[in-house]
Amino acid sequence: MKAVILLSGGLDSSTVLAIAKNQNFDCYALTVNYGQRHTVEIDRAKNIAEKFGVKQHKVVNLDMRWIGGSALTSDIPVPKDRTEDDSIPITYVPARNTILLSLTLGWAEVLGAHDIFIGVNAVDYSGYPDCRPEFIKSFEETANLATCEGVEGRKFKIHAPLIEMSKAEIIKKGTELCVDYSLTISCYDPDEEGRACGGCDACKLRREGFLKAQIPDPTKYI
Amino acid sequence: MKAVILLSGGLDSSTVLAIAKNQNFDCYALTVNYGQRHTVEIDRAKNIAEKFGVKQHKVVNLDMRWIGGSALTSDIPVPKDRTEDDSIPITYVPARNTILLSLTLGWAEVLGAHDIFIGVNAVDYSGYPDCRPEFIKSFEETANLATCEGVEGRKFKIHAPLIEMSKAEIIKKGTELCVDYSLTISCYDPDEEGRACGGCDACKLRREGFLKAQIPDPTKYI
Repeated sequence: MKAVILLSGGLDSSTVLAIAKNQNFDCYALTVNYGQRHTVEIDRAKNIAEKFGVKQHKVVNLDMRWIGGSALTSDIPVPKDRTEDDSIPITYVPARNTILLSLTLGWAEVLGAHDIFIGVNAVDYSGYPDCRPEFIKSFEETANLATCEGVEGRKFKIHAPLIEMSKAEIIKKGTELCVDYSLTISCYDPDEEGRACGGCDACKLRREGFLKAQIPDPTKYI
Repeated sequence: MKAVILLSGGLDSSTVLAIAKNQNFDCYALTVNYGQRHTVEIDRAKNIAEKFGVKQHKVVNLDMRWIGGSALTSDIPVPKDRTEDDSIPITYVPARNTILLSLTLGWAEVLGAHDIFIGVNAVDYSGYPDCRPEFIKSFEETANLATCEGVEGRKFKIHAPLIEMSKAEIIKKGTELCVDYSLTISCYDPDEEGRACGGCDACKLRREGFLKAQIPDPTKYI
């Protein structure tokens, strides 16, 4: 059975690829270059896809910079050492996961894959609305109304296996499944060599995750 | 109040722009060059947007040819003189309207626009699943779970004013609202000068629409 995995090159999506592989899916990875600051992600995604022997890895350009409104895709600086509050941070990219899942859905339909994997997480996360279970469930319903396959009863399932896991649990799971986390990158604002800034939300969640999991953190920091 | 209108340069979306304008929205038009055969659409969209004095017209490149599987975006020939049956034709582009609406949603959120207009039609249409009311309703729900605006209670509305109109009714409505249909193009397989083939599904529906509306057809055929 075929599955399409959205692979960013980060810790979460790499773990998801390992989970899909472990469930014996034939894995097809999709990486979207959406004009993010951290394009070093793309190279990491290629390495990871190769390591896991995916059947096919597509890297697609979809510049989202014209949409604007986010620190990840425009000149707005990435906030560092943000204190926790309830607001949605400026690193939110409007409609990003809806756009990414839509593209994945198109490719999955052509491949005849009905299983789509995405590494969203609603525990140790930045509060993005499109990382929550209710969003994933709703997208799945939309997908099955939008497509020939869905309408004809061959339903798509959106798998979000990390959605209720803590970062430490994700790291433990991935380590069991032999994910080499030194290949992955989580930082929103790495330097040119791909070293992590250590201060952005993504770096903090990652660092704390390794600490809590009591697994050595292989991340190279600036 | 701002609205974002998906504008393909065809008959339907041009009518939708006229309807939004007539409802006193400040109109922002989005045209996606998705690698369709009929790129002459893009030039027509520019003319139409200008004619209606939209506040801003974005033309965005999102090549969907890598997805494949459709006569509109690959080397599969566009069928001519298709007899009517229940099957979904090969001109279906997998997940197209989901992808287009997702991009529109991202831009709308940044603009602070909560009204999105799309020219889908489920009467005189080719049977595409993503043109039906149940798809539009489901996408709207997903949009309001996916975005900060939606989650914070400033809900998006997806307007599909043509969804239950016949092609003749659409043409009558647009004619009332001064749409110049000679600027629009519906053909899936036009020649380089933008003349319509006359034989594809889109041409047939358009031609019959003008006939039934008893309005002269300004389309230039090959």
